[in-house]
Amino acid sequence: MKAVKVAIVGASGYAGEELVRLLLSHPQADLVAVTSRQYAGQTLAQVFPKFSHYPKTRTLRFTEPNAELLAKEAEFVFLALPHGVAAEYAVPLLQLGASVIDLSADFRLKDAAVYQEFYAHEHPAPELLEKSVYGLPEIYREKITKADFVACPGCYPTSILLPVLPLLRANLIRPDSIIADSLSGVTGAGRKVEAEYLFAECNESVRPYGIPKHRHLSELEQELSLAAGTPVTIQFTPHLIPVNRGILTTLYLQPLEKPSEDLAKKISATYQQAYGNEPFIRILESKALPDTKNVVGTNFLDLAWRLDPRTGRLIVMSAEDNIVKGTSGQAIQCFNIMNGFTETTGLI
Amino acid sequence: MKAVKVAIVGASGYAGEELVRLLLSHPQADLVAVTSRQYAGQTLAQVFPKFSHYPKTRTLRFTEPNAELLAKEAEFVFLALPHGVAAEYAVPLLQLGASVIDLSADFRLKDAAVYQEFYAHEHPAPELLEKSVYGLPEIYREKITKADFVACPGCYPTSILLPVLPLLRANLIRPDSIIADSLSGVTGAGRKVEAEYLFAECNESVRPYGIPKHRHLSELEQELSLAAGTPVTIQFTPHLIPVNRGILTTLYLQPLEKPSEDLAKKISATYQQAYGNEPFIRILESKALPDTKNVVGTNFLDLAWRLDPRTGRLIVMSAEDNIVKGTSGQAIQCFNIMNGFTETTGLI
Amino acid sequence: MKAVKVAIVGASGYAGEELVRLLLSHPQADLVAVTSRQYAGQTLAQVFPKFSHYPKTRTLRFTEPNAELLAKEAEFVFLALPHGVAAEYAVPLLQLGASVIDLSADFRLKDAAVYQEFYAHEHPAPELLEKSVYGLPEIYREKITKADFVACPGCYPTSILLPVLPLLRANLIRPDSIIADSLSGVTGAGRKVEAEYLFAECNESVRPYGIPKHRHLSELEQELSLAAGTPVTIQFTPHLIPVNRGILTTLYLQPLEKPSEDLAKKISATYQQAYGNEPFIRILESKALPDTKNVVGTNFLDLAWRLDPRTGRLIVMSAEDNIVKGTSGQAIQCFNIMNGFTETTGLI
Amino acid sequence: MKAVKVAIVGASGYAGEELVRLLLSHPQADLVAVTSRQYAGQTLAQVFPKFSHYPKTRTLRFTEPNAELLAKEAEFVFLALPHGVAAEYAVPLLQLGASVIDLSADFRLKDAAVYQEFYAHEHPAPELLEKSVYGLPEIYREKITKADFVACPGCYPTSILLPVLPLLRANLIRPDSIIADSLSGVTGAGRKVEAEYLFAECNESVRPYGIPKHRHLSELEQELSLAAGTPVTIQFTPHLIPVNRGILTTLYLQPLEKPSEDLAKKISATYQQAYGNEPFIRILESKALPDTKNVVGTNFLDLAWRLDPRTGRLIVMSAEDNIVKGTSGQAIQCFNIMNGFTETTGLI
Repeated sequence: MKAVKVAIVGASGYAGEELVRLLLSHPQADLVAVTSRQYAGQTLAQVFPKFSHYPKTRTLRFTEPNAELLAKEAEFVFLALPHGVAAEYAVPLLQLGASVIDLSADFRLKDAAVYQEFYAHEHPAPELLEKSVYGLPEIYREKITKADFVACPGCYPTSILLPVLPLLRANLIRPDSIIADSLSGVTGAGRKVEAEYLFAECNESVRPYGIPKHRHLSELEQELSLAAGTPVTIQFTPHLIPVNRGILTTLYLQPLEKPSEDLAKKISATYQQAYGNEPFIRILESKALPDTKNVVGTNFLDLAWRLDPRTGRLIVMSAEDNIVKGTSGQAIQCFNIMNGFTETTGLI
Repeated sequence: MKAVKVAIVGASGYAGEELVRLLLSHPQADLVAVTSRQYAGQTLAQVFPKFSHYPKTRTLRFTEPNAELLAKEAEFVFLALPHGVAAEYAVPLLQLGASVIDLSADFRLKDAAVYQEFYAHEHPAPELLEKSVYGLPEIYREKITKADFVACPGCYPTSILLPVLPLLRANLIRPDSIIADSLSGVTGAGRKVEAEYLFAECNESVRPYGIPKHRHLSELEQELSLAAGTPVTIQFTPHLIPVNRGILTTLYLQPLEKPSEDLAKKISATYQQAYGNEPFIRILESKALPDTKNVVGTNFLDLAWRLDPRTGRLIVMSAEDNIVKGTSGQAIQCFNIMNGFTETTGLI
Repeated sequence: MKAVKVAIVGASGYAGEELVRLLLSHPQADLVAVTSRQYAGQTLAQVFPKFSHYPKTRTLRFTEPNAELLAKEAEFVFLALPHGVAAEYAVPLLQLGASVIDLSADFRLKDAAVYQEFYAHEHPAPELLEKSVYGLPEIYREKITKADFVACPGCYPTSILLPVLPLLRANLIRPDSIIADSLSGVTGAGRKVEAEYLFAECNESVRPYGIPKHRHLSELEQELSLAAGTPVTIQFTPHLIPVNRGILTTLYLQPLEKPSEDLAKKISATYQQAYGNEPFIRILESKALPDTKNVVGTNFLDLAWRLDPRTGRLIVMSAEDNIVKGTSGQAIQCFNIMNGFTETTGLI
Repeated sequence: MKAVKVAIVGASGYAGEELVRLLLSHPQADLVAVTSRQYAGQTLAQVFPKFSHYPKTRTLRFTEPNAELLAKEAEFVFLALPHGVAAEYAVPLLQLGASVIDLSADFRLKDAAVYQEFYAHEHPAPELLEKSVYGLPEIYREKITKADFVACPGCYPTSILLPVLPLLRANLIRPDSIIADSLSGVTGAGRKVEAEYLFAECNESVRPYGIPKHRHLSELEQELSLAAGTPVTIQFTPHLIPVNRGILTTLYLQPLEKPSEDLAKKISATYQQAYGNEPFIRILESKALPDTKNVVGTNFLDLAWRLDPRTGRLIVMSAEDNIVKGTSGQAIQCFNIMNGFTETTGLI
């Protein structure tokens, strides 16, 4: 079978590096270009010695990003760029006929005003907001199948939306009750060379940040509102913890009825119906609780829940690898869907 | 000044080791006995080489615990034992005239039935429950001053009660709205030799546990109810994170009025009044948020809060060292108060 | 193509777990049995939730080990057992016609007296010592091809022998000059539930151990002596460092001639000849030095060397994953060779 | 007793921060000035919230460094600056009558040509090289007592020189046989904001670096040669390991005679004579080996040794905290000696 030619713009950050890893071993992708201003001229093997056993890495060199060249060389282009910058490439690439999978926040929101509120600058290409599809396969698989422009969700939103959306859709919880407490590994900050991400500043440290208005709230509330059919405002607190990878989210939710065996059955059935056949969602059995170490390096999201008869609340917990299911793995999952490949290709 | 003779029963766990550290350098304590079934016969220096520069550690040997001998040798006895076992020593030691500072859960609760519900065995000495004082100095300093029997709070309760009690007393939050999400370092589990606490099981791992009914709920709800003047039930989720020491607690609270500058002033004034002169509570200024790395090895609890105008909630965050302010440091703080010493002696 | 039926005896330790991981995804292996005294009766998915997306893990249950049953069910049996115990299963399994890949130390040595000296008990099956092949594919590929009984090397020896053997064979270094300083992650100790391997005992700790006579010296010196054609005694110091996986070995060697461009060329040519076509050895280029993070989770050994003109010494450094190339990955590599499969099957 | 007025130039790096910690609690030092280009204008409490319980930190502000002002305000000035920069302040401060304790490499060497060889620029103040005293108290206590200008040793050299110098002076080892293999925590790199020191680049990573010619070789060989009475060249390999603090050094040495009980007694007596009364060197007993976790946060260097009868070599191991005994603690130790204070003041 002929492989699809793919390129990565911004391949030197953590999301880009993970795309490189996944695409080098993807049986139906042919990585033909990687860009990086910082590393232009160097081979993949020089920048990422861990991939040097792939013969291609010894010849494929980082280049300066150039939309015209990329559109000629590649059918699919992954953008692993900061918000604001991604749009600069998405626009011409789409015009030139390439399919675009954007890992930035630029095209996740449908409302340019919300973008401006949360990202503090005018949206660079509001005309494209209608066109992009939010790349959460478990929710938007149909749309992704037909899309040539996918905006992949943020890492935190993936860990929160997947557990909450089925409950909202099934009208099992109060939409105004959602509290999401998330713990993220340090790669979540990207390969940002800032003092606060130095080893000795993160190791033996645990800290909340971005309180109370983190940027990811914008896409979270957009998607939660769509599912609830009513505007939803949530509480979200991210924390930085000393692991390389992984997000553990604990959700505090108020069910619309009192905890009972009947409610438990409804929740179980709701999750079973939503995710029972999903290849990348594992609903944990019996006493098991999510642990990031079980998902690190994989595209799985592990999920468990408990009804608390004392407080009447529903506690849902999820674990994912922030740069696989939370970022680059999910992008590959979308890539597979867009191409009609088996959805797990190159991911299991 | 003459030093007070002190003994530690169960000195080989993490709490016991930390008591050893603090008491060896305490200018008004004279450590005269340490017990440990496992290490009986060995010197302190052999078991804890890190303390070997204290000349005393080369002669002071672990012994089998014996209440009669301990009561003869020491005026104050610290019990760093598992619940259920502590009572076996507390009873005779008190009868023999020693003052007892118990780090276990045995004498924290006032109601033996609640103890039985949460600890799954009958209370071993219910007649003493009235006598013991809950060792949270910022709340019970007066009682501790006169006490000869103190039951030190658990590590999680300390990190939750100190931020919440003043708000409840000031009638600023809804008592039924309290959600406490806590992250603890691995010493919180004690020096338990179980597979789940092995390095490779905890490193690069983050996980919730003990959901939804952790034992610490019993003392939490006892103290919260006392402060609220009404029975309080709370949501509490502990998580294990890969650091040696530290608890970071994030509290989600519903104020009784809408967020406003006025409410912010009330909260600020409430904390200022409660803790403005406390030597071990640091209310963080302006943009700072708690980080466990700022309190590790110290008896401080760092505290910050934010009103979220979007959701109407109050977020309070605290950081402490789980085996200092959360356990052994707080025990020394009580010891200082009981003896009329400056409260910070040996702790700053 | 028909898959080979395989079983793992002792599948609950770190080496066993890694075999499970590699065999579940191996396209030419069919895992039919896993044994564990501790977990008998539980499914693979229950014990290792991280593998629960493989449908087989929900039905395949751990059993008590039984050589007769294993020999009936499986063509190849991997033994991931402590030394002394492995022999109990190797003997009957071989008699019953199974091929055996032993990860323990029981059949690495050719001399039962040396075994007794280093392992402190009589060798349990000395008659089999002649029969087993030392499973270092880069050195013994020919023999492994024909073998039905392979004794896989220890993790430290793999990291030391691969860099040193070609130099000894090419007569480039003094055999009595070898100093190996090795740093190992904590999984190297196995899933031993002992206090010294608890998280808080290993984290923020670095320490040497087993000095000066570690058990791995026996197989190291056996193989080095064979390569040198003369008895070789080496210096070896292992250290425990706070990472899950990885061994970094730094070797100090005395070349037989003074450092020069000519000597550098000889060394380069020697390594190139020995490993230029090896699929799992990566000789690092130019300025790169080994880093365990580049090999973790893989079967690669990364290697670099430097001549020091100031001291006249040759410094060689290697990095490997202690439970992949150092243990279970190497076992799969042998399995592939024994079956005539492409050597990298299931490993890249 | 009147406290000595002290200032720190470059107080925002790890060495500077540690000086702040030690001087704030030093009973005979009065910290009157801290400088930092980056933080000028901010209070100590704002930059280092962990010290905010010291009332002084809420008023003492970082200033731009100015030698004239510093010399007026302080009697002792600590320089925690990069090499090359430290000299700019040392020269005027000394002229203006301040005593200077320099933590950089600028005045450790006696030979300006060696400085230029290793530090790649001309020495900025060669006329002062004669005047400075190498601040290793266990070796140069007499000179430090009378000095007003001390150049504190590097962190690696401290961990190597203290174990080796007594052996060389006692003529027990071959001077050309010294191999030092060192493992350092990440604070050893300083608070350098470079990608290679980001959390996710160091965590789960172990790597050698700076091979084969590290800058610390210059001071190492100067001091070893002085002790041996003959020029000494050594092998030294530093490694970066994922801990915040700590250096573990393993030394491979060739004794001048064969291992024997007699040699063991000589070594023991040599160390006992050299360090038996030293307050900060702990010679470990019987089976104990150094572990960085026993010295972290302290000014101790732990030391153990083993004779290997198989190879004839002597293995010596040391552990220290790289920014206490390796840097700032040792600077305070010198400060105490220079002032005639008890040497352990503020350090135990």
